[in-house]
Amino acid sequence: MIRIGLDAMGGDRAPVVPVTGAVEAARELPESCEIHLVGRRAEVEEALARFELPEGRIRVIDASETIGMGEKPLQAIRGKRHSSIRVGLERLKSGETDAFISAGNTGAVMAGSALLLGLHQGVERPAIGALFPTATKPVLVLDAGANIDCKPRELRGFAHIGAVYARDVLGRHNPSVGLLNIGEEEEKGNDAVRETYALLKGDQLLNFVGNVEGSDVLHGELDVVVCDGFVGNVLLKFYETVAHLFAGFLEREIEPELLQSPGMGRVFKILDYSEYGGAPLLGVKGVAIICHGSSPARAIKNAIFVAVQAVKVHLTQHIAAEMAGDGEAA
Amino acid sequence: MIRIGLDAMGGDRAPVVPVTGAVEAARELPESCEIHLVGRRAEVEEALARFELPEGRIRVIDASETIGMGEKPLQAIRGKRHSSIRVGLERLKSGETDAFISAGNTGAVMAGSALLLGLHQGVERPAIGALFPTATKPVLVLDAGANIDCKPRELRGFAHIGAVYARDVLGRHNPSVGLLNIGEEEEKGNDAVRETYALLKGDQLLNFVGNVEGSDVLHGELDVVVCDGFVGNVLLKFYETVAHLFAGFLEREIEPELLQSPGMGRVFKILDYSEYGGAPLLGVKGVAIICHGSSPARAIKNAIFVAVQAVKVHLTQHIAAEMAGDGEAA
Repeated sequence: MIRIGLDAMGGDRAPVVPVTGAVEAARELPESCEIHLVGRRAEVEEALARFELPEGRIRVIDASETIGMGEKPLQAIRGKRHSSIRVGLERLKSGETDAFISAGNTGAVMAGSALLLGLHQGVERPAIGALFPTATKPVLVLDAGANIDCKPRELRGFAHIGAVYARDVLGRHNPSVGLLNIGEEEEKGNDAVRETYALLKGDQLLNFVGNVEGSDVLHGELDVVVCDGFVGNVLLKFYETVAHLFAGFLEREIEPELLQSPGMGRVFKILDYSEYGGAPLLGVKGVAIICHGSSPARAIKNAIFVAVQAVKVHLTQHIAAEMAGDGEAA
Repeated sequence: MIRIGLDAMGGDRAPVVPVTGAVEAARELPESCEIHLVGRRAEVEEALARFELPEGRIRVIDASETIGMGEKPLQAIRGKRHSSIRVGLERLKSGETDAFISAGNTGAVMAGSALLLGLHQGVERPAIGALFPTATKPVLVLDAGANIDCKPRELRGFAHIGAVYARDVLGRHNPSVGLLNIGEEEEKGNDAVRETYALLKGDQLLNFVGNVEGSDVLHGELDVVVCDGFVGNVLLKFYETVAHLFAGFLEREIEPELLQSPGMGRVFKILDYSEYGGAPLLGVKGVAIICHGSSPARAIKNAIFVAVQAVKVHLTQHIAAEMAGDGEAA
């Protein structure tokens, strides 16, 4: 039995959107999967009542408090013991669920995960892994915003964790890892990036392909791109709006009947982040997935599928083993 | 008379592409403008011979050497006294031309400009200003790759220089300046960005709108975005490929007849960097514009128009005055 915890109170339109995503996922998931909606029981059950539920596939776990989007993460996690995020993470820690997904306060999920689940050996701070759509397969970019001013050792950790995720969850064989830089040559970049290059180059356990530039990220040939959380966050947020911008251009400029064509539908689908279902929080001991506050139900549904896959392949155990091996090699 | 120097030997398909761009520009520019093609006379004249030339609007300035794309910038500029880049910059310095444009070795143009033209008061390193297409007016992002690890004082200099460029060349009234960061709040970001925020906030001469995120860059409401050259370079190169990626999606996915529609043509035009005609090198004493090595003739032509505009409005003098005022205020 795989049990996925979902923050029913997280996101701009909670609990309706998370509950809808959970119901849609439950309809497609095998019987061996169960979804645990964490939140204010009355509100969650009211939202659930609108649906014909698949028998015994969704449970409601009561959590009387919520953490708002604007609250200070650490303070909120410490102070609100009955919040949906805290309760969900504690159930993950205790083994009552196998994963936790939230579209709520990202900082609170990060702080709570680090605090309650703990970090793998050799990991100093968790990283957000973001999937960027490309013309072929998506590429995992990390860190996408959990950290700034990353040390070379941390960046090397991200490379290893990202490689395991790419292998386990994305199904990539011998995943290629690039280091984001402003030139391909070894001597390019600032001190931290140059030092990281040396660490990655000497790391026999990685399939390191060298420095990659902004223009390489979307080539579709990379599996993992490692970068500081500052650059990764700017790039992620930028890319998300590019898709909107592009959709806006199309809607403004092209003839309305063309917008309805099947080909155009496929283009919008590729560009739609909802397809990728949230960003894993990597480095923490457990499967934790962060979704945008604005995630539609489809994104929540897809995040549930991602979580199921991560649990099924034993992602957490594999990252633990990778980091333990890495620690020995270092 | 406005005289624009153009590196006839710069770019992947020189001298044919720069020469074609020059001819196309000369056909549209007023009679008060002259283009000086700098390069090996025989080769340039051969390329010119294919065209019906507008009378007396294009001159060839002989420069017997060329600097290759892979050459070390400073070494090449110092060693090749007769290279098209060196000759072009020296003529700009001496006042024989009013601007210089090159699609050749970017590092050599930067190093040569700093060395030969010199920097404005208060400027420690020149910055590359890149124009990013948005759904409305383009936004100037600087630095887009000339520097890494920028100091707060340098970033403030970029804000001032960018504001003058936005006013003079882009015609923006009271240009808005944002600081690229990973959150809107004052306390976000790394040390350099936080310090820069404080400097910009206290600067009465700027229309500083605060921190902006990756998702704000393309909103179309900003005139200038200030960032470290590392982030700016990654973002610029990334954005350039996004346009290609989208075009690729469209070509692969949508019905061929739709690709030919007038609306689709407009979309491709918005996304086409050639429309923006190169990136100004800002902070040097003189109008210097850098184009991609892969620039088509249309990009060269547009860079010539940008240069003419910059000369016409006295960009260099205005930046000098702004930086002098800034120096006093500091």
